[in-house]
Amino acid sequence: MPNPTAAMLVIGDEILSGRTRDANTHHLAGELIKVGIDLKEVRVVSDDRGAIINAVNALRAGFDHVFTSGGIGPTHDDITADCVAAAFGLPLDVRDDALAILQAHYDTCGIELNTARLRMARVPEGARLIANPISAAPGFSLDNVHVMAGVPSIFQAMVADLRPNLTGGAPVASKTVRLELPEGEIAGPLAALAGRNGDMSFGSYPFNQKGSYGANIVISGTDPGKIDAAAAELRALFGGADA
Amino acid sequence: MPNPTAAMLVIGDEILSGRTRDANTHHLAGELIKVGIDLKEVRVVSDDRGAIINAVNALRAGFDHVFTSGGIGPTHDDITADCVAAAFGLPLDVRDDALAILQAHYDTCGIELNTARLRMARVPEGARLIANPISAAPGFSLDNVHVMAGVPSIFQAMVADLRPNLTGGAPVASKTVRLELPEGEIAGPLAALAGRNGDMSFGSYPFNQKGSYGANIVISGTDPGKIDAAAAELRALFGGADA
Repeated sequence: MPNPTAAMLVIGDEILSGRTRDANTHHLAGELIKVGIDLKEVRVVSDDRGAIINAVNALRAGFDHVFTSGGIGPTHDDITADCVAAAFGLPLDVRDDALAILQAHYDTCGIELNTARLRMARVPEGARLIANPISAAPGFSLDNVHVMAGVPSIFQAMVADLRPNLTGGAPVASKTVRLELPEGEIAGPLAALAGRNGDMSFGSYPFNQKGSYGANIVISGTDPGKIDAAAAELRALFGGADA
Repeated sequence: MPNPTAAMLVIGDEILSGRTRDANTHHLAGELIKVGIDLKEVRVVSDDRGAIINAVNALRAGFDHVFTSGGIGPTHDDITADCVAAAFGLPLDVRDDALAILQAHYDTCGIELNTARLRMARVPEGARLIANPISAAPGFSLDNVHVMAGVPSIFQAMVADLRPNLTGGAPVASKTVRLELPEGEIAGPLAALAGRNGDMSFGSYPFNQKGSYGANIVISGTDPGKIDAAAAELRALFGGADA
């Protein structure tokens, strides 16, 4: 049976403007591999209501899981919760359980729970809260859509909270063989090797370091023994080394 | 008149597996801002024919420009040119002009132009070649889709070749004000400021450094004078500094 599939939806103008590099996708990708869920697509959209709603609906229909990051804070440009609720056709209101979490946190810190902060207690009916041990304001899972913060430390804590609830398939193992040859020399025999091993994938990632060409060949699959055998065959063909 | 819009399509399993971080989007985003083209969406898809074709067709219909990176080398997993041709319903064959470029390059280097390398001379009829001063194999522009390499140094050289052909609108300027206050304190007055300045965007990007909360407020627009005025108003409200 193929592994469950996932998509990541990164929300926020700061990635698209080039000001910020998205670090959350890299973290999620690594966690999903451990669980045995295949990350198949990433989308980055701006803080635009129509763009977010369309992406949520396209991705939740196309993949087993959708993970979002960004846009759940207290400011006017934080519209992710509104858009996810709208994508599901659900109302969005302050929910008592989320409010209690925020109230306890701000009471402890001696901070006022003002109107802006109250926005972060708005959670669609039926959603399961995702814990935020760093700044309290929770994320939530609605059906197969998991809504999380954009700040990397909080995103990572939320993924950790979510992880026990994610059921995956066989974890994908991989091995990388570094070949000091240009891809054009490797391509023919590599294609033949890939053709004989249809249950594994063979990715070729060229590099150009100090004027010398080479490629890292990443062999992926669910059977570590077969991966080792294919890596050995590759090294026998081209004299590479494990990267 | 609003600026032309663009989407970036990153093709390759290596980003989705978490092995590699995509550096090309960040570069493209910075270049497009200089030209006055608004990057509105990024998608990352795997080396999968259906996924690539669907993404190319969705994005070229939705945006003025589509920039792709990855999948145009000589190995079996390099299927981007095939998929772009299929998305347009065009055949894909070795084209004389691309072949001449490769032949000259490999003759100079004393390298054989073998079957695998010949794959890189396949360009759809009607496409304009994008120069590759690093390893010769060209990219191409077909209608509003610009197909480029994934290796960052080559991607950047191809963007440089393409740039004189891109016509943008007003370059977007921006200024960042760093506020040493949690977003929850900023949100109300910031929303009011944004409401009074509908022709600019005010993004709030929270940070948490050494246990202290703050936010970078990014003010963007096409009128530098109005951006400066809004930044001054923000500093007067909250005592921040230019970041």
